[in-house]
Amino acid sequence: MKFAEFKDGMLIKAGPVTITEAEILEFARKFDPQWFHTDPKRAAEGRWGGLIASGWHTCALAMRMAVDAALHDSESFGSPGLGEVRWRTPVRPGDTLRLEARVQGARTSSSRPDLGIITWSGRVIKQHDEGVLEMDATSLFDLSGEN
Amino acid sequence: MKFAEFKDGMLIKAGPVTITEAEILEFARKFDPQWFHTDPKRAAEGRWGGLIASGWHTCALAMRMAVDAALHDSESFGSPGLGEVRWRTPVRPGDTLRLEARVQGARTSSSRPDLGIITWSGRVIKQHDEGVLEMDATSLFDLSGEN
Repeated sequence: MKFAEFKDGMLIKAGPVTITEAEILEFARKFDPQWFHTDPKRAAEGRWGGLIASGWHTCALAMRMAVDAALHDSESFGSPGLGEVRWRTPVRPGDTLRLEARVQGARTSSSRPDLGIITWSGRVIKQHDEGVLEMDATSLFDLSGEN
Repeated sequence: MKFAEFKDGMLIKAGPVTITEAEILEFARKFDPQWFHTDPKRAAEGRWGGLIASGWHTCALAMRMAVDAALHDSESFGSPGLGEVRWRTPVRPGDTLRLEARVQGARTSSSRPDLGIITWSGRVIKQHDEGVLEMDATSLFDLSGEN
């Protein structure tokens, strides 16, 4: 999508992606080696009743879905940050995730007309419509035509 | 560290880790396949003057540093979420990152004495003391002795 196609209030649906135990283990061993993310046996006996994905893994998959559905062919050049992030319920091996991103605002900077700014409210949902992640984000777009 | 060792105002220093071009490409091709994260040649000609890491990759490395320095031997069992996240300046191949996490509050839940709650303010800094990431986070600890 191009910046001009994003409209206030638009709902972008992305995904699904299914996450495997091997992916959960690979991500967590690199980035979040806590036992409930890396040790299936101990996790099965622990409070979560099984292995759960690192919340950062869920965020990364949300990003992948957003890129595939909306950003990959846009003028996007980055993000200054996020608002609040909420991990609502654990993601487990075999879960199928999808992303619903609501465009809260799409505008050009008043001081820099070649800068597009989109604010989003994103929600990752798994099977049975259970919400697993909520976050607000900002994306920046280069409208100069130079990149 | 154990929950009881975290004190209000404590500064935890973690890292460093050095990020390579291969790692930036591997992460981005999986989770954030935008050209400025995945295409060194196009990125060199673009506004960033070279490849930059996905902001999610920086977050994931911050988590790894926090686990290694403070969480791996604690009673940590997860997080409900984050406050604001700010990506201040790009992370590039060869950058060396470290984490400074300030304990804003360490308390037990008033209604559940077996639940420990720590709020943090984290900052990732690269060489020359340049800040690249800031975020506030909450971690939960199981003080029941059962896990």
